Amino acid sequence: MDKEKVFQDAKDWVLEAGEYIRDRINEPLHIETKSNPDDLVTQMDQDTEEFFAGKIKGTYPSHRVFGEEGFGDDVKDLEGVVWIVDPIDGTMNFVHQQKNFAISIGIYEDGVGEIGLIYNVMDDVLYTAVKGEGAQRNGEVLPELSKDRPLHRSIFSLNTTWLIEENRLVDSKGIADLVKTLRSTRSYGSAALEFAFVAEGLIDGYVTMSLMPWDVAAGKVILEEVGGIVTAGDGSRLDMVKRSSVCATRDNIHEEVIADYIRLK
Amino acid sequence: MDKEKVFQDAKDWVLEAGEYIRDRINEPLHIETKSNPDDLVTQMDQDTEEFFAGKIKGTYPSHRVFGEEGFGDDVKDLEGVVWIVDPIDGTMNFVHQQKNFAISIGIYEDGVGEIGLIYNVMDDVLYTAVKGEGAQRNGEVLPELSKDRPLHRSIFSLNTTWLIEENRLVDSKGIADLVKTLRSTRSYGSAALEFAFVAEGLIDGYVTMSLMPWDVAAGKVILEEVGGIVTAGDGSRLDMVKRSSVCATRDNIHEEVIADYIRLK
Repeated sequence: MDKEKVFQDAKDWVLEAGEYIRDRINEPLHIETKSNPDDLVTQMDQDTEEFFAGKIKGTYPSHRVFGEEGFGDDVKDLEGVVWIVDPIDGTMNFVHQQKNFAISIGIYEDGVGEIGLIYNVMDDVLYTAVKGEGAQRNGEVLPELSKDRPLHRSIFSLNTTWLIEENRLVDSKGIADLVKTLRSTRSYGSAALEFAFVAEGLIDGYVTMSLMPWDVAAGKVILEEVGGIVTAGDGSRLDMVKRSSVCATRDNIHEEVIADYIRLK
Repeated sequence: MDKEKVFQDAKDWVLEAGEYIRDRINEPLHIETKSNPDDLVTQMDQDTEEFFAGKIKGTYPSHRVFGEEGFGDDVKDLEGVVWIVDPIDGTMNFVHQQKNFAISIGIYEDGVGEIGLIYNVMDDVLYTAVKGEGAQRNGEVLPELSKDRPLHRSIFSLNTTWLIEENRLVDSKGIADLVKTLRSTRSYGSAALEFAFVAEGLIDGYVTMSLMPWDVAAGKVILEEVGGIVTAGDGSRLDMVKRSSVCATRDNIHEEVIADYIRLK
């Protein structure tokens, strides 16, 4: 694919979709009633994915589209060029906060993440990366992440779910040990933004046990461009067509987190 | 006290201090080196508290100042007018993120919270309240909080710390049950902002086991003005001169959280 052209198109479409979502959220009707935010997000999720599927298919007929809402293709492998699309990542934030959600698009060629875009719609902040060319935040280059800050001086995004003993995916005792080791934890409610915040250096890692490919696809490309490491929770390579655990951190602490703290069930 | 004049002065000083902090964070020196953020925050914390103590004592000699950094008075009770000041709430966010921290000022008269100001410095968002006159966000009135959304549809800010069995302050099993009941949790790393986010309706509650009076003083006034309830974790009245647990939520879920989930050690 013509990476520069595809990147430019993807960026234009993301900004266009974001403007559409902002306009609809700010419509007096929605602000005044705020009565059916669940319906609103469902509708906007579908409309936005349909918008992307239409643009992509119209411009790049050979590319496939992989997304949650079903307007794309039935993707079982990543052969050729695949756009992995989450029209609204952080739907619960959308519903409760009308902010702190993102559009997330990862573009993969034969399984390799080539382009990533995460757009914090309401804050109008766009994170982008092209493989081998670095990552940017609103056009400003993001610096390489620290490679020497130790785990006990790190802040992770980590949801309380994984500290509940009965959760089906991970040993909560290992996660409790991680919490005790870290300086502190945060939780923002949008996987895409959590990846972006690690890439930006606001936090040092993001650990979670259940993400779909469209939650991860863009974040992985962006984070890897600033020297971060993204794997499944057991350290294995992420399978980009299946639900997976995820450990996304700065380089120098990744192995330690996998080896000492995450025990998948 | 002349509430309107005191409120106007407090607001002017908070905005002035915020501008000073923003300018110093954005100084090329600090951006380029980012080498000693710990030193920077300590210095700014002290400078800012000293600034407030000077302004308050100069203008209102009979008022007392109660803060972390020791430029105020040795406050053991809340007789008369007391300004409870946190110059930088969320110091870890300040150090790691250079954003998501706040200036917090609560002004109490004979123990009653009369004025609250929380200033999200880097986002330039000021939350204010005067007792009996409602709360505002950047001058726009904050509406009364919902009184009918049930707990299982609520999002709380809740740090992972309280799910660690060995914590000395609360039964982690009760908190785990709370997590299982809630729709989801978040954690933002600034108590003052967490109060503000409940007041704004972004989240439905904030539960934590150890806050100092200056972390709570402004948030309590603001949240109560939109119909929220703020007590200690056992439902008792907050003692505003001591460290305390805090349960701050919308009205209709507060009793349930206290009765069914928070068991202080």
